[in-house]
Amino acid sequence: MKKTYVAALVFTLAASVAGYAADKEDTLLKDAQAAFKPIPDKAPAIKGNEATPVKIELGKMLYFEPRLSKSSLISCNTCHNVGLGGADYQQTSTGHGWKKGPRNAPTVFNSVFNLAQFWDGRAKDLAEQAKGPVQASVEMNNTPENVVKVLNSMPEYVNLFKQAFPGQADPVTFDNMAKAIEVFEATLNTPDSKFDLFLKGDAQALNQEEKEGLKLFMAHGCVSCHSGVNMGGDGYYELGVVKKPSEKIIAGDTGRFALTQAKHDEFSFKSPSLRNIELTPPYFHSGVVWDLNEAVAVMNDSQLGADLKEGDLHKIVAFLKATTGKQPQVMHPILPAPTNATPKPSLD
Amino acid sequence: MKKTYVAALVFTLAASVAGYAADKEDTLLKDAQAAFKPIPDKAPAIKGNEATPVKIELGKMLYFEPRLSKSSLISCNTCHNVGLGGADYQQTSTGHGWKKGPRNAPTVFNSVFNLAQFWDGRAKDLAEQAKGPVQASVEMNNTPENVVKVLNSMPEYVNLFKQAFPGQADPVTFDNMAKAIEVFEATLNTPDSKFDLFLKGDAQALNQEEKEGLKLFMAHGCVSCHSGVNMGGDGYYELGVVKKPSEKIIAGDTGRFALTQAKHDEFSFKSPSLRNIELTPPYFHSGVVWDLNEAVAVMNDSQLGADLKEGDLHKIVAFLKATTGKQPQVMHPILPAPTNATPKPSLD
Repeated sequence: MKKTYVAALVFTLAASVAGYAADKEDTLLKDAQAAFKPIPDKAPAIKGNEATPVKIELGKMLYFEPRLSKSSLISCNTCHNVGLGGADYQQTSTGHGWKKGPRNAPTVFNSVFNLAQFWDGRAKDLAEQAKGPVQASVEMNNTPENVVKVLNSMPEYVNLFKQAFPGQADPVTFDNMAKAIEVFEATLNTPDSKFDLFLKGDAQALNQEEKEGLKLFMAHGCVSCHSGVNMGGDGYYELGVVKKPSEKIIAGDTGRFALTQAKHDEFSFKSPSLRNIELTPPYFHSGVVWDLNEAVAVMNDSQLGADLKEGDLHKIVAFLKATTGKQPQVMHPILPAPTNATPKPSLD
Repeated sequence: MKKTYVAALVFTLAASVAGYAADKEDTLLKDAQAAFKPIPDKAPAIKGNEATPVKIELGKMLYFEPRLSKSSLISCNTCHNVGLGGADYQQTSTGHGWKKGPRNAPTVFNSVFNLAQFWDGRAKDLAEQAKGPVQASVEMNNTPENVVKVLNSMPEYVNLFKQAFPGQADPVTFDNMAKAIEVFEATLNTPDSKFDLFLKGDAQALNQEEKEGLKLFMAHGCVSCHSGVNMGGDGYYELGVVKKPSEKIIAGDTGRFALTQAKHDEFSFKSPSLRNIELTPPYFHSGVVWDLNEAVAVMNDSQLGADLKEGDLHKIVAFLKATTGKQPQVMHPILPAPTNATPKPSLD
């Protein structure tokens, strides 16, 4: 009898502990679902820019088209490499003339979910963004006029623009180039990370360490700037709200202030998405921190003032690594044959 | 009766002309089959380097891997772009430090069928070739030691090398990198051009102009240096055998002579493959001629002394355009996440 009693007691206790644990698990899942959203399986629709298959295909060709650059060497994919988490492995991007750009290249993956584009949000959408690097002297260093000349020189492009923008008298334009690139980029999303599966209700998709990392991430305020579908990209936040990070990290960059001249924008940046973050070192707008552990420690000091210990930081990093999703499968496009009318590259 | 007689005569004449034409067609096909071979549908086997699926996949990753370069910016695909006919749209390739290389980048497509690699044949096969640009100061500017360090820093690569080179104690080597790239490159072939279909027996695959171009190509001696499966790439030939082309085209390059110091190698080069030639301007080792019509005219003057008229040159160009085959469909590889041990890029 005694044995049975003990066994029953143990059973009851175990059941109650398990129930308590399940409750806590349930709470974590519910808290996470309130703060984050999974990456959708399908590309979201873009208002005013219908994503037809031919427009997506044209956009892909343009994304991989080095002849959009003055040198005919640099394409969107050079700095936003679909094989490297949608970014490059550079402190700040290297472009025309081997010049270094001013900021680290953000990933193109899931960027359609950002409220705006670039570190300072100066482009309202991906179409507007796409026009920037094509013209930037330290990136592709081209002009809209020359781009249109390049595209018009190849009958295959002219035909594809006609199909992608039906009913337009003159569809081969710099704006339409950007629109086609936008619908392609909107397909470059990374669903089904372990964290996404968790958010969709599979409580076992994250392991214990990752769950503890998620708890710390939410409890200590990381989630304030890194929430929503993209775990970031939804607002502008001051870098160094508790304590300015080192001058090496700031790198003399006042962020959104340079754009708006508004005092409250000083040193503020669009919070970067943390999805797939393990794939895209280095970190921060200045790209000076290569180690993800160090990047999280910098955030702890400058944004949270939370005094998280090394073990906790490692748990957060373990959680962040669980956000790496299915990388986009992209068939490399076959680009059109040039003609005698196609402008020649210029390295100057 | 008279009417019937005339009709019968006309019929007889027409049949006899058609028969004569068919004979000529048949002769053209037979002559072409004697001089050329179609691109095979499958990658050829490489002696001593078995092409397993995992090795091909690893080779593809390495082919697209910018972190094999000192800057982490330049991959094989930068200058041998699978979307641009396996070459770049550059006079001579641009590499590390925005430096220009000495010669125009030959296409990687069908290059497995060449007797050797590089314009002067200094690499006996694609594996040996692959080691060149990785180390060249004006290309990827890296060292074998640093490449091995890069590869060993990423567990996914280490694992793939183990699988691709089973039974080797230390499979992550510079040589094995080159071997993996070789088996991938051997898949980058372009079968089923109109000319290939013709060679396989479909006499209607070429139109009349293309057939006349083919006839001229064979009758006037182009075929002497551009025959076989690759329409070139099978030997070394003096540039300017009849008359030296302009100094602009020669560009002070003595070709294979610089390698062998043999008098008979002066100004001799491996004849480039003419397949897909419309996709890969500019032409010649110096890359100074962008117009295919002009390139054929230069060959007429300097190699044939044939005095072909403009109409004939156009027919030859029409024939050359019929050699454009099915371009390889390449799924862009997903490259491994770097680790803290992965060497950082250096732009110096």
